Amino acid sequence: MPPLPGSEARAETPPLHGHEAGVILQRVRESVDPELRSALESLPGSLRRVALYHFGWEHADGTPAAGNAGKAIRPALVLTAATALGGDRARAAAVRAAVAVELVHNFTLLHDDVMDRDTTRRHRPTAWTVFGDSAAILAGDALQALALRLLAEDPHPAAGAAAARLADCVVELCEGQHEDTAMEALDPGEVTLDQVLVMAEAKTGALLGCACALGALYAGASGEEVGAMDAFGREAGLAFQLIDDVIGIWGDPSRTGKPAGADLAARKKSLPVVAALTSGTAAASELAALYAAPYDEGDLVRTALAVEEAGGRDWAQVQASDRMGRAMGQLARAVPDPEAAGGLLSLAEFVTRRSA
Amino acid sequence: MPPLPGSEARAETPPLHGHEAGVILQRVRESVDPELRSALESLPGSLRRVALYHFGWEHADGTPAAGNAGKAIRPALVLTAATALGGDRARAAAVRAAVAVELVHNFTLLHDDVMDRDTTRRHRPTAWTVFGDSAAILAGDALQALALRLLAEDPHPAAGAAAARLADCVVELCEGQHEDTAMEALDPGEVTLDQVLVMAEAKTGALLGCACALGALYAGASGEEVGAMDAFGREAGLAFQLIDDVIGIWGDPSRTGKPAGADLAARKKSLPVVAALTSGTAAASELAALYAAPYDEGDLVRTALAVEEAGGRDWAQVQASDRMGRAMGQLARAVPDPEAAGGLLSLAEFVTRRSA
Repeated sequence: MPPLPGSEARAETPPLHGHEAGVILQRVRESVDPELRSALESLPGSLRRVALYHFGWEHADGTPAAGNAGKAIRPALVLTAATALGGDRARAAAVRAAVAVELVHNFTLLHDDVMDRDTTRRHRPTAWTVFGDSAAILAGDALQALALRLLAEDPHPAAGAAAARLADCVVELCEGQHEDTAMEALDPGEVTLDQVLVMAEAKTGALLGCACALGALYAGASGEEVGAMDAFGREAGLAFQLIDDVIGIWGDPSRTGKPAGADLAARKKSLPVVAALTSGTAAASELAALYAAPYDEGDLVRTALAVEEAGGRDWAQVQASDRMGRAMGQLARAVPDPEAAGGLLSLAEFVTRRSA
Repeated sequence: MPPLPGSEARAETPPLHGHEAGVILQRVRESVDPELRSALESLPGSLRRVALYHFGWEHADGTPAAGNAGKAIRPALVLTAATALGGDRARAAAVRAAVAVELVHNFTLLHDDVMDRDTTRRHRPTAWTVFGDSAAILAGDALQALALRLLAEDPHPAAGAAAARLADCVVELCEGQHEDTAMEALDPGEVTLDQVLVMAEAKTGALLGCACALGALYAGASGEEVGAMDAFGREAGLAFQLIDDVIGIWGDPSRTGKPAGADLAARKKSLPVVAALTSGTAAASELAALYAAPYDEGDLVRTALAVEEAGGRDWAQVQASDRMGRAMGQLARAVPDPEAAGGLLSLAEFVTRRSA
């Protein structure tokens, strides 16, 4: 299926920032991967296989694979925040924390895929489809334990506060996923925009905020700076989610790896959809009717148009810009020197523009 | 259904030790419950409901319940080990660690019930049958995070080592559960006794050992004492599992709350069953045949007899005594003063005799 109408109007990734972020992410992988891999290798045999498969370091049959463990945005935020506030020394000290955040992220992915019955992750079959639900749940449980063990064993003075903060974040991530699954069972008309925003902040914003806050903690930053870094990550995370939801409807299938309009086909109550449904427009009623019945041919295109006509797309893009503005404000509070803040700025722009 | 043949021959709980252990467990509940409850109350709304229901403090509709959160054996081991090696001051300092161990235990119960599709826990419907799989998985994830947060926030000098040890234990528990589910999918003839023993140590012994080790850490014990306390808990845990498996076949339904021979009806590869299957006796062949086909009337009684004739029951009881002997040896190494060791001895006898 070709891209849905309007998808050709996407802004291209600005090459300069994309390049900078690309360099940062590459360096982060080099710092983080050895420690991450050694944490996974410490797992007992059967769980190790599930974990190495999930991270892309093994094929389903246990033979080595090239690795495709995602973009490492979260560890990059930890290390870049540490550098911005404490230089190279803080960056070096924060590698374990960066690995812990990546382990937590992947524990939630393993569990979310089981709950959501998602069959594809990073262009490969999800772990539960290969090893079964129990193995995927247990591997996720073990990754959470590995994450908190890394911090428990870290002699750095910030490690205790970092562990407490990461554990709090896990609770918030669980709450976000719980709200998400509860909301998917509701009638679209029963969901408010505020509910979806709160859910998105818990499910996506919380861990990006925590990553930045951990970097700040390892740089010995003040409570106020740590708070501002957390808020920066949260706002950038919400901007990312808004853009991701736009891509989920109008993204180019050849670039997203998903069929056009995948989120609409799954009747996802994503941010632009709920904004459209609660707009009080004629298009909102049309959208509600389309979401309530099985799709006929051409209905997916009509549904995307209804979201757009009801203002859902514009709202999401304005909200995303607004959130990025707030993120910049928080970043300036935490790191007043624009040069020191440059890396975090590049990462925030990278995640919010990556393929929108 | 009446008890299976042989169940009348069970030893009664010795009233003295039972009473002593009962007093210890009651005091432990009084120390642990306020902190445990306040940890659960800190959860966000929807996950809090699942957790309070699981612990028996709320009914499914959210109204208050009397509480039925199990016997608190694991927190009792933490506090009694701390007392044995460091007196009342160590006991008071170890309350958070005791709560953390209880949270980890309950996180694994929530997840295991989802994986095993168990519908009853402590005489009530399991959380996943009431709130759904996702809610039970997420509540379990959150309990693990709460456990490690409690230790991360604990200023006690032993807290870091305790957190690392508890996280390692979680990995071992996951491995044990993984082995258990993998083994249930195997043909009974493919399972070795060694495999089941290793699995039982990981699934049951590891957390009892960890509980004792954490108590020792909070008492400022030496590495050798901590190791001996861990080994004491592991051996007692294996003895407990052996007795529990005997009860699962020959236990009195009016006391176990389960139908007679429940484990045989479910074709569980419990320790006495695998010992019987691998005994090379004629009864072993009969048992294998009975386990391979649907039960006719009277087959459950015949199956229990076959396990007994093949020596499975005797083996389990001898093994349990042997493990208890080893546990006593480790206890004497860690706590040479018999008076100081009395509480731990009572608890070990309580768990291994509770209804066998």
